[in-house]
Amino acid sequence: MSKGFAENRTDVTMSELVAEPRPKPAVPMKPLGISSNLLGYIGIDTIIEQMRKKTMKTGFDFNIMVVGQSGLGKSTLINTLFKSQVSRKSASWNREEKIPKTVEIKAIGHVIEEGGVKMKLTVIDTPGFGDQINNENCWEPIEKYINEQYEKFLKEEVNIARKKRIPDTRVHCCLYFISPTGHSLRPLDLEFMKHLSKVVNIVPIIAKADTMTLEEKMEFKQRVRKELEVNGIEFYPQKEFDEDLEDKTENDKIRQESMPFAVVGSDKEYQVNGKRVLGRKTPWGIIEVENLTHCEFALLRDFVIRTHLQDLKEVTHNIHYETYRARRLNDNGGLPPGEGVLPPAPASPCPATIAE
Amino acid sequence: MSKGFAENRTDVTMSELVAEPRPKPAVPMKPLGISSNLLGYIGIDTIIEQMRKKTMKTGFDFNIMVVGQSGLGKSTLINTLFKSQVSRKSASWNREEKIPKTVEIKAIGHVIEEGGVKMKLTVIDTPGFGDQINNENCWEPIEKYINEQYEKFLKEEVNIARKKRIPDTRVHCCLYFISPTGHSLRPLDLEFMKHLSKVVNIVPIIAKADTMTLEEKMEFKQRVRKELEVNGIEFYPQKEFDEDLEDKTENDKIRQESMPFAVVGSDKEYQVNGKRVLGRKTPWGIIEVENLTHCEFALLRDFVIRTHLQDLKEVTHNIHYETYRARRLNDNGGLPPGEGVLPPAPASPCPATIAE
Repeated sequence: MSKGFAENRTDVTMSELVAEPRPKPAVPMKPLGISSNLLGYIGIDTIIEQMRKKTMKTGFDFNIMVVGQSGLGKSTLINTLFKSQVSRKSASWNREEKIPKTVEIKAIGHVIEEGGVKMKLTVIDTPGFGDQINNENCWEPIEKYINEQYEKFLKEEVNIARKKRIPDTRVHCCLYFISPTGHSLRPLDLEFMKHLSKVVNIVPIIAKADTMTLEEKMEFKQRVRKELEVNGIEFYPQKEFDEDLEDKTENDKIRQESMPFAVVGSDKEYQVNGKRVLGRKTPWGIIEVENLTHCEFALLRDFVIRTHLQDLKEVTHNIHYETYRARRLNDNGGLPPGEGVLPPAPASPCPATIAE
Repeated sequence: MSKGFAENRTDVTMSELVAEPRPKPAVPMKPLGISSNLLGYIGIDTIIEQMRKKTMKTGFDFNIMVVGQSGLGKSTLINTLFKSQVSRKSASWNREEKIPKTVEIKAIGHVIEEGGVKMKLTVIDTPGFGDQINNENCWEPIEKYINEQYEKFLKEEVNIARKKRIPDTRVHCCLYFISPTGHSLRPLDLEFMKHLSKVVNIVPIIAKADTMTLEEKMEFKQRVRKELEVNGIEFYPQKEFDEDLEDKTENDKIRQESMPFAVVGSDKEYQVNGKRVLGRKTPWGIIEVENLTHCEFALLRDFVIRTHLQDLKEVTHNIHYETYRARRLNDNGGLPPGEGVLPPAPASPCPATIAE
């Protein structure tokens, strides 16, 4: 007894894509019985395992930037996020280190491995931001740095002999530290986010949230969200880039409830109820950074690392980099950088042929 | 009691990448105790799960081409591989269908889903190949088709406004069907593979292997490998693209033992020892296609679908496509197709400025 293949089975669904005329099947297609499920296994879903193996071998890049006035705990928070001294500065304030007179950009890289997966992490610090008497245009060096990384990537991408994997120095995530004033966003906060939200994924966070009571925190968060909305500032994850309803549902919750994450960082460990936790010890109690009733650090960590890291990378590549690339090529008459009217090969003037 | 973060733990390893001067840590780094393993979990390896979710949503493309004389069971084998009527032709021979007078290229697409993963499969058939009296240059339409797909991809890639996911019609795998003569490769086999192995991943297979005894098969396989080697023909997986020792060990075994896979295809089911199997019934017994003592179909299936599918796609993109792209841009003076000296915008002659 013989039967043809089935097109409709519980585990395999098929539909034709190409509308090419297709001869009638000589063997009529009948559904196979349940007993042939194993017989019918193709192995399409092994692609996941194959991709996992490749990722385990190559690892991945992740570049995170921290922006905010000095004293908001940027270095400590980054160290807390990655459970390691990955920040440029040590956790404690270094007396010798002076606030720079202009905004500087300092990048430091580490390789962190966990569960066999290697992450090439680069932390980009921006000392001096917001620390001057006059902070006009102090987002400019930051925007310039971000665009330079896009340019670098673009130059590699249009090269004739390309690297197999283009080194990715593009900023995938920019944590913007809001001062826990309890009042409102400062003009500098608004200016920065207005300028930068178009070029990079900004995740606004309220720093040192342990200075606020629960009520103050809720009220402040709501006010910040309102101000961002009134000023037309979109932060990551941007509504327009939700890919489906599942994305939308998940991200709406983050946009409307979690953002901006009110966090506390610490690289010190304490014993609480027999368990060792990261926290800050005060005379009135220990603030546990990973305790959700104390602050939203764990929410931020889950968001940036455990649920949205790949998406941060993809939005950087598919949206921000593509926007930069399209503008760059448009400015250059559709030619890659380095070609046509741009250096190093400016077009020779050729007025004689214009009339032709 | 408080401690600093550790840089050396069993599950997390770190090493510095950027050789920027780094201030001495004020908090000395001591290894954390074993009890803090959980406390120390960052979540880097969740990237795998994040990538899995993305792949489940988007699915993936896989384009497979079959080349070989008519009557070697190409359609049946493709149907057997994907456990479905995915071939252009039905399993049985259609009396009305005539052998075309020249080589034709026929592509047909399906979506197959398994374990929640969607594969957009395109099967590219090449009827008429090797079927003429004079088969000179009959690989040319095939090479042309393969290059056209690279050109399409390149055109999309250099577009200013790019699609988020460039539709991938490039041929990821070309199954080349060798006739089970038991003698040697024909000149056409050698010519085809010589020309095409530089532009596409060729997997040579011995068709209808049930016509050979075990000894004949082993001898024929060895002879084919020898002939390919003598003629300097590299098939997939190419030695030079092994990425590490693990790849090399695994692929050496395939190159030296399995290739070319001697296979039998069937889309008919039979009952053997109470189990339903795909096979071919003969008066002297049932040839079970998935029985490794009968033929190497299961080896081929595992190789093409379950272990090397992602690599077939990556080698196509990173090697064959890159080679095409580099040649194309070099021919065009480094400009993308459509720019510079190529249509639609040929450069105006400008002799007056040359002396300048």
